[in-house]
Amino acid sequence: MSQQRSSVLSLKGVRIQDPFWSEYIRLVRDVVVPYQWDALNDRVPGAEPSRAIRNFKIAAGEETGEFYGMVFQDSDVAKWLEAVGYLLQTEPDPDLEQVADAVIDLIAKAQREDGYVNTYYLLKEPGREWTNLSECHELYTAGHLIEGAVAYYQATGKRKILDAVCRLADHIDSVFGPEPDKIRGYDGHQEIELALVKLYHATGEARYLRLSRFFLDERGREPHFYDREYERRGRTNHWGSDFMITKRSYSQAHAPIREQESAEGHSVRLVYMCAAMADIAAETGDEGLLEACRRLWKSIVTRRMYVTGGIGSMAQEESFTLDYDLPSDTAYAETCASIGLIFFAQRMLNIEPDSRYADVMERALYNTVLGGMSKDGRHFFYVNPLELWPDACGKNHAYDHVKPVRQGWFGCACCPPNVARLLASLGQYLYTVKDRSVNAHLYVGGEADIEVGGQRIRFKQQSELPWEGRVRFELEVESESDFTLALRIPEWSGAAVIRLNGELYDAETANGYALIRRWWKSGDQVELVLPMDVLRIKGHPLLRDTVGKTALQRGPLVYCLEEADNGKNLQGLFLPSRSEAISEFDPNTLGGVQVIRMDAQRLSEKDWGEELYRRDADTSFEPAALTFVPYYAWANRGVGEMAVWVKEKA
Amino acid sequence: MSQQRSSVLSLKGVRIQDPFWSEYIRLVRDVVVPYQWDALNDRVPGAEPSRAIRNFKIAAGEETGEFYGMVFQDSDVAKWLEAVGYLLQTEPDPDLEQVADAVIDLIAKAQREDGYVNTYYLLKEPGREWTNLSECHELYTAGHLIEGAVAYYQATGKRKILDAVCRLADHIDSVFGPEPDKIRGYDGHQEIELALVKLYHATGEARYLRLSRFFLDERGREPHFYDREYERRGRTNHWGSDFMITKRSYSQAHAPIREQESAEGHSVRLVYMCAAMADIAAETGDEGLLEACRRLWKSIVTRRMYVTGGIGSMAQEESFTLDYDLPSDTAYAETCASIGLIFFAQRMLNIEPDSRYADVMERALYNTVLGGMSKDGRHFFYVNPLELWPDACGKNHAYDHVKPVRQGWFGCACCPPNVARLLASLGQYLYTVKDRSVNAHLYVGGEADIEVGGQRIRFKQQSELPWEGRVRFELEVESESDFTLALRIPEWSGAAVIRLNGELYDAETANGYALIRRWWKSGDQVELVLPMDVLRIKGHPLLRDTVGKTALQRGPLVYCLEEADNGKNLQGLFLPSRSEAISEFDPNTLGGVQVIRMDAQRLSEKDWGEELYRRDADTSFEPAALTFVPYYAWANRGVGEMAVWVKEKA
Repeated sequence: MSQQRSSVLSLKGVRIQDPFWSEYIRLVRDVVVPYQWDALNDRVPGAEPSRAIRNFKIAAGEETGEFYGMVFQDSDVAKWLEAVGYLLQTEPDPDLEQVADAVIDLIAKAQREDGYVNTYYLLKEPGREWTNLSECHELYTAGHLIEGAVAYYQATGKRKILDAVCRLADHIDSVFGPEPDKIRGYDGHQEIELALVKLYHATGEARYLRLSRFFLDERGREPHFYDREYERRGRTNHWGSDFMITKRSYSQAHAPIREQESAEGHSVRLVYMCAAMADIAAETGDEGLLEACRRLWKSIVTRRMYVTGGIGSMAQEESFTLDYDLPSDTAYAETCASIGLIFFAQRMLNIEPDSRYADVMERALYNTVLGGMSKDGRHFFYVNPLELWPDACGKNHAYDHVKPVRQGWFGCACCPPNVARLLASLGQYLYTVKDRSVNAHLYVGGEADIEVGGQRIRFKQQSELPWEGRVRFELEVESESDFTLALRIPEWSGAAVIRLNGELYDAETANGYALIRRWWKSGDQVELVLPMDVLRIKGHPLLRDTVGKTALQRGPLVYCLEEADNGKNLQGLFLPSRSEAISEFDPNTLGGVQVIRMDAQRLSEKDWGEELYRRDADTSFEPAALTFVPYYAWANRGVGEMAVWVKEKA
Repeated sequence: MSQQRSSVLSLKGVRIQDPFWSEYIRLVRDVVVPYQWDALNDRVPGAEPSRAIRNFKIAAGEETGEFYGMVFQDSDVAKWLEAVGYLLQTEPDPDLEQVADAVIDLIAKAQREDGYVNTYYLLKEPGREWTNLSECHELYTAGHLIEGAVAYYQATGKRKILDAVCRLADHIDSVFGPEPDKIRGYDGHQEIELALVKLYHATGEARYLRLSRFFLDERGREPHFYDREYERRGRTNHWGSDFMITKRSYSQAHAPIREQESAEGHSVRLVYMCAAMADIAAETGDEGLLEACRRLWKSIVTRRMYVTGGIGSMAQEESFTLDYDLPSDTAYAETCASIGLIFFAQRMLNIEPDSRYADVMERALYNTVLGGMSKDGRHFFYVNPLELWPDACGKNHAYDHVKPVRQGWFGCACCPPNVARLLASLGQYLYTVKDRSVNAHLYVGGEADIEVGGQRIRFKQQSELPWEGRVRFELEVESESDFTLALRIPEWSGAAVIRLNGELYDAETANGYALIRRWWKSGDQVELVLPMDVLRIKGHPLLRDTVGKTALQRGPLVYCLEEADNGKNLQGLFLPSRSEAISEFDPNTLGGVQVIRMDAQRLSEKDWGEELYRRDADTSFEPAALTFVPYYAWANRGVGEMAVWVKEKA
C-alpha cells in the first residue's frame, strides 16, 4: 500500500551463529521453552499452578472443572506458541512441532463456532464477552493468540492455527467497528493492534489492517468508550476499583493517539501501542501518525528512559511518571517494557533507517533485556533497578517491588515468555532492506539471506561484540549486484574504520550508517572496526538522579559496580574525573566478561565516630581499586549492592 | 520513690515572653485551639465532619444518632482539652474555661457507671470493650483523656475531670493486670503508659504507676497477647487485614521492651513508649529500663534521625526502616513523631541532664515541629520531607504522602492538636531542676519561678534565638541562695562566652552545660554569648542520601534552598567547599528571617542539547548566588522546589 515501509525479513532466512548470542538462543530452546511448557501444564514442583492448558481442555470439553487464573491466562499459552514458532523457523524440531500441533488442536477445539476463543469468558462469564474491555484484556489475549499463530504458520506452513485466528479476527471484526451496530471500543491493554498487522502480512487480508487502524484511531476519543461500556455493563469492576476505567492515561486512553505529546501510563502498553502505530503509519503512509510516533519516541528516549534502556520510573501502575524522573533505586524498568521498546524501534527502523532507533534497540537489548534473565535461563527479573541496597529491601517498603536476585518463573509470569520470544526471534532485528539498500543494525554473527532488487544475497557476519568492536561481513551473490550495504556506526563507537576486501574504505555516512555502494560479487569482504573506548556517560542536567555522577559504558554494555567486587557501601565511592579506565577480559569473572578497572576514592569512615551529623567533618578519602562488570550480568553472585551511576569527584 | 528524677516544673511557674516564640503561642491560643473547637463541632465549612463532640452527646444521651469517625475519635477532644489546660495554666481565660467545663460535663455524663468511657465502643460495639487492643486504640484514647484531664486539673484545680479519669484508670486497673482474672495485655498504640505516670504525679496514687509499668513490661512477651486476644475474639479484624496483629514490630511488640536493640516500627508509637519507659525508669530507679532507654535513644539519634530532627523514613507504616536509611525526598518524618521525640528527650533530661538530649530536643522543635505549622496557624504538615520536587507529586506515586504545601486541618487530623499542645506547654521544656542545680536547656525568653533547695527563685530570661546567640538571665531570690545554674552550650555554638554581672566568667562544663555555682543574690545577671557561625553539616558516611552533600545550619536552625529564591532545578546546584556563607537578617523574606547567602555554581544546561545521556559531556557551570532560608519556614511562598542537602564541589 505504501512505499515507506521496508520489506519484512523472514526469520527463516537468518541463522544466528554468534559466540555471544547463540548461547542465549540455545537456552531459550533447551531450557526456557521446555520449562514454560511444564509450567503451563502444572508440572513445575513448588510453582504456583498455571492451569493455562487445563483451561483450554475444559473449554474444549476434554476435562471438567472451572477456569483458573488471571483473566488473560490464555496469553501464556499464546506466547509459548509464538516462541515455538520462532524456534521452528530457525531450526526444525519435530518433537516440539508435535507438541505444538496438539496445543493447536486443543485451541481449535475450544474455539466457539463463531470464532470466539477466550477460556476465561467461555468458562467463567459466558454471555459477558466484550463487556469489559477497559479491564479484562480480551483483545489483548486475542492479539497474543494471533501473534503465536502467525509465528507458527510462518515456521511450518500449517494453516490450522492461522485459520483459527482468522476466524477469531473475523469475529472481532464483526463485533467492533464504526458501524452503528458494532462496538466503538478498544482494549485497555494494547496488543491486538500490532497482532492484526502481523495477521495482515501473513494473509494479505486488508480488513485486518483496517481493524487495527480502527482500534488505534478510536482510542481516547470522547465521549469515552470506558465510560460507555461501564454504564452499559451496570458499573461493575473486575479488579475491585474503578482505577482502570477512570485513570485514562494508565492505558493511553486520555487523548486520541495523534494528540498524545508524551509517553504516559503503563509503559508496556505504551510501547505496544507505538509499535502498532508505526506499523500502520508504514502501511498507510499516514504522515500524522508517523509524526505521533516520532513524538512519542522522542518523549521516551530524550526524557524518560534509563541509560540501560529501561522504561517506567515507578512500580505503582508500572508506569511512566514525568520528564527527567528516573530514580535509580526505585526504578521499575520492567523487562517487558524494554522488549516493547525494541518492537517500537524495529518498526521505526523499517520506516526510516536512522541509527538512533537502533542505538536504543541495542541499549535495551544488551542491558535491560539481557539482564532480565539469569545465565541458567530459569530465573528472571521483572524489575530492573539501576541501584540496589539489598539491606533496605523488605525493610523500606519503597523497594517492595525490587528483588535483589532473579526470581523463579512464577515470581513474574509475563516477562520470561517475552524474553523467550524476543531472543528466539532475534534474527528479525538485525537488518532491514529498503529499495536497494541493506541496513545492518545489530552486529550478531551468522548468516542472513536477504532479497535485494530481486536477487537473494547471503550476508555472512562475524562479530566480536559485545567484547570487541570488530565485525566482518562476507557476501555471496548469485551474480554481481548493485546495492548499498549500510553499516550502523553505533553511538558508542570511536572513529570507525572500514576495510573493503582488505583496503581502507572511506565511506559516506547517512543517518548514522556508513554506506558502501557498489557492484558486489561473491567473496567480497567488509571489515568494520568500531573502537570501544570506555565511555564516561553523563546524564542530562535535568536528570535529578544523575547530577554529579557518571556511568561507564563500553560498546553496547552499560557497566555497574557490585558488592562482590567492591565491597559494601557503594554510595561512598567517587570516581576522580580524570582517572584512567582499563578494560580487560576476565575469564574468572561471571564466566568470562570484559571488566573495567579504575582507581577511585572511597569516603573514609575511620575517623568519623558515631555522630550522625557533624559540623566540623573534614571529609577524608581512601584509595579504592574498583572493578566494574556489565550491568546485564549483575546479581549472579548472590545478594549484594549494585550501582550503575557513581559519584564523580573533581 | 527515687533520687534519680529531677522535680517536675509546673507550667504555671513559667511565663514565656519571647520575640520569637510568643507569637506561636498566641497563634495556638487565638487561632489553633478555637479552630479546633469549631472542627470538633463540625463548624468548619468545607472540612470533613469530625462529630467528636456529637459522639459524646449521643453517648451522654443528649442526642440520638450513630457513632461517627475513627475508633480513636475521642482523642481529638482529649487533645483539645489538654491544650486548653496548658493555655489556662499560663493565662486565665474564663470564656475558654467555661467551654471546657461544658465539655467535661459532657464527658462525665457519657462515662459509664463503672468508669469506662470510649464513645466508639459505647455506641458501636457495646459489650466488645477490651477485645481488640492490638488494633483499636482503646487504651490510647483513654491515655489522651487522662493527659487532657491532668492538664486541665493542674490549670484550674477543678477535680471533676480528674476524678472522671481516675475512675476510668481504676476501671482499667480492674481489667488489666498480671492476676489470672485480668487481661495480660496492652495497647497497640502506646500512650496510656505515659498518661498514667502523669496521673500518678497529679494524684500520688502509686497504682497508676504500677499499671503503667505493667503495660510496659508485658509488651512483646510470648505467648503473644495479640495472638491470644485474636483467637479469643474469633479472629476478627478491625482494619480489614491482620497486619497490626502479625507485624509485631509495627507496634514495638516484637520483643520485650528491655530487649529491643533498635528503633523499629511506627515512629510515634516508639517515642511515646520511650517517654513512658524513661518516666518509669526515673520513678523506680530501674537501671535495666534506663539502659533500654539509652539504647533506643542512641539508635534513633545516631542512625535513624533526619538532620531536621524528623524520624520515620517511610510512609508505609509511618515507620522507621533500617540504620542510615534516611531518604530526603520520600521521608515521612511525621510532625507528631518529632513531638514524641521531644517528650522522650525531656524525660531523659529529667533523669540525666546531658546536652545531647537537649540538642536533639531543640533540633526537632525548631525545625520539624515548627515547620509543621504555617504562619497563619491554619495549615499543617503531617509529613516533613527534606527535599521536594513538586512536579513529581501526583505523578510519581512514591511521593503520594508528600504534600507540597501545608494542608488545612482535616488533611491531617492528628498533628495539628499535637503541635498545639506542645507549643502551649513549651514552658515545661526549658529547665530541669535536680538537687541544687538548675539546668537551662532551651533559650526562650520569659520568667520562670523555680524552687531550688526550698527557695523559690525567679529566672528572668531574654533570648535572641534563633537569630542571634545572645541570652541574658537575671535572677530574683528571696535570700542569697547557693545553687548551680547550668547553661547548655548547644552543639551548634562556637566558643561560648559567659559574663556574670558584666565580668567574664570562666565556667567549668559538665555534660555539655557551663556550670555557674555561687551564692546568688537578686539582680545577679548572667550573659551568655553563643557564637552562631554558619555550619556546614555533613552526614555520616553510611548515610546514602547525604554523601557528597552538605546542609547549612546556623544556631538551632537547619536551612534549605527554595525555588522562590533560587529558581528551579535545585539538583544542579553545587556549593564550592570553601565558599563563604554570609548570614543576614532579611526583613523582606518570609516576614523577616535570618537568611544565608552563598556563591555557588549551577550545572549549565545551555550547551547540552536534547540527548538524555552523553558520552562526551564536558560539565560546565555557571555562577549562582544562592539564598538559604530556615527550613521551618519553607513552603510559605506557594509551591516550589526545596532542598536541605546540597551537593558539594571541591
